[in-house]
Amino acid sequence: MGLAFDARELEAYMAEIFPQVAEDFAIDTLSAEGITMRLKVAERHLRPGGTVSGPSMFALADVTVYALVLSRLGAKALAVTTNSSLDFMRKPEAGCDIIAKGQLLKLGRSLAVGDVHMFSQGSDKMVARSTMTYSIPPVR
Amino acid sequence: MGLAFDARELEAYMAEIFPQVAEDFAIDTLSAEGITMRLKVAERHLRPGGTVSGPSMFALADVTVYALVLSRLGAKALAVTTNSSLDFMRKPEAGCDIIAKGQLLKLGRSLAVGDVHMFSQGSDKMVARSTMTYSIPPVR
Amino acid sequence: MGLAFDARELEAYMAEIFPQVAEDFAIDTLSAEGITMRLKVAERHLRPGGTVSGPSMFALADVTVYALVLSRLGAKALAVTTNSSLDFMRKPEAGCDIIAKGQLLKLGRSLAVGDVHMFSQGSDKMVARSTMTYSIPPVR
Amino acid sequence: MGLAFDARELEAYMAEIFPQVAEDFAIDTLSAEGITMRLKVAERHLRPGGTVSGPSMFALADVTVYALVLSRLGAKALAVTTNSSLDFMRKPEAGCDIIAKGQLLKLGRSLAVGDVHMFSQGSDKMVARSTMTYSIPPVR
Repeated sequence: MGLAFDARELEAYMAEIFPQVAEDFAIDTLSAEGITMRLKVAERHLRPGGTVSGPSMFALADVTVYALVLSRLGAKALAVTTNSSLDFMRKPEAGCDIIAKGQLLKLGRSLAVGDVHMFSQGSDKMVARSTMTYSIPPVR
Repeated sequence: MGLAFDARELEAYMAEIFPQVAEDFAIDTLSAEGITMRLKVAERHLRPGGTVSGPSMFALADVTVYALVLSRLGAKALAVTTNSSLDFMRKPEAGCDIIAKGQLLKLGRSLAVGDVHMFSQGSDKMVARSTMTYSIPPVR
Repeated sequence: MGLAFDARELEAYMAEIFPQVAEDFAIDTLSAEGITMRLKVAERHLRPGGTVSGPSMFALADVTVYALVLSRLGAKALAVTTNSSLDFMRKPEAGCDIIAKGQLLKLGRSLAVGDVHMFSQGSDKMVARSTMTYSIPPVR
Repeated sequence: MGLAFDARELEAYMAEIFPQVAEDFAIDTLSAEGITMRLKVAERHLRPGGTVSGPSMFALADVTVYALVLSRLGAKALAVTTNSSLDFMRKPEAGCDIIAKGQLLKLGRSLAVGDVHMFSQGSDKMVARSTMTYSIPPVR
């Protein structure tokens, strides 16, 4: 399936529809195989002790799969998260961005499923993983 | 199992250790049976269109189970989220707080499991549900 | 929403379409509020040591939510499991049936979500919980 | 981390401790990177219509991660499933074995997390995915 956006176009489109989200995330790469999304870690994403918070990791996984869906279906697509699972394996390293590698496992007529592996930048130890299911309502 | 805190004491303790979290959440009730936690919905929790964002719902579920663990184990307890599942069933109503009803399903020596049902205030239609597993490292 | 079957009719219908499943499960109660499904524990459901196997618990949760969907939508309904989460909290007691209490959290046009709490018969300690999502393809 | 077993030794050990399981599964490959486990699909794994049943897919994912844990920790290891998530993406092809590719995401002192991707033999379309968490009680 072709891509409706390249990385810069998708980033610009997401900044337009989700202005709050734009300062937190950047798209490092986007291709037919998948996406690399970056959480630009700042004070507001941290828990006491310096760990990146669970909700920030959830947000990263969610936006990664949402971006994958938009990149295939284009700007007209509606998509609503219906289910997510998250496993937290390791404490992220302090002072690092989190890098999410996302892949669409399914893009059906009414459901999309994406898998996300998250790492501290520069490390190959997985910090967390997530699967997100999006429901895609019919365009009217 | 007895409670180490009442609702006001637990809220005060959580405000002390998680200052960023305190303005988002309030404990409505706390008992041996469970907890009622409120997400005080504000502009920063919303997505375009007025829906409460997924990360805000995740944060609510997470803090609900964390509060349950603290209420049983007291202030010395360490607890780290290791796994979560979330199902989003309905769009929350606009302009309403989200009310989470949480229950501990297990409080073992090394793992705690809590279940959370979330509603728009005043409605009995479930908006989302979540199960959260916390790992409880041994106190040294 | 009314019920398309009572407990005996639903059991008979499921035995007809899933003959392999009929000897494993019985419906204890069925109402507008939910269902009580019984796993009739036999040798083939056990792991060494006498625990009920994980796949048997999965099968119980799955059939419980499937029965809930059929009880609402009737025999014409198609429904396919798309997602499940399971938490195992305690070892089931030896030589007991497992009792599943199931509830539909959502019955939408294209997705149904059900929640299942599982107990050893006669105990109120939850052995496992599960959420199952079914996709409901349009009837043609 | 070194391997405590090679593929044939592990298969033999699992057949010894889980005789019921041995006729359902075979280990195709085992290495430091991961495992390939085969569900030898037979009549008893099928649903009406020829689909491999959900409980059979669950059993495959569960045994895959259990084998990964045993391969690292050796025969003395105890390990109990505490959590699982499964996503079903596509109907498996009729008359094919299911091939599971498993990988350990974490092997900590008290928790192991494994990821499993399942395919119909000869196809690269993912049929289902699962994450399984095992609790590893201390050896006494």
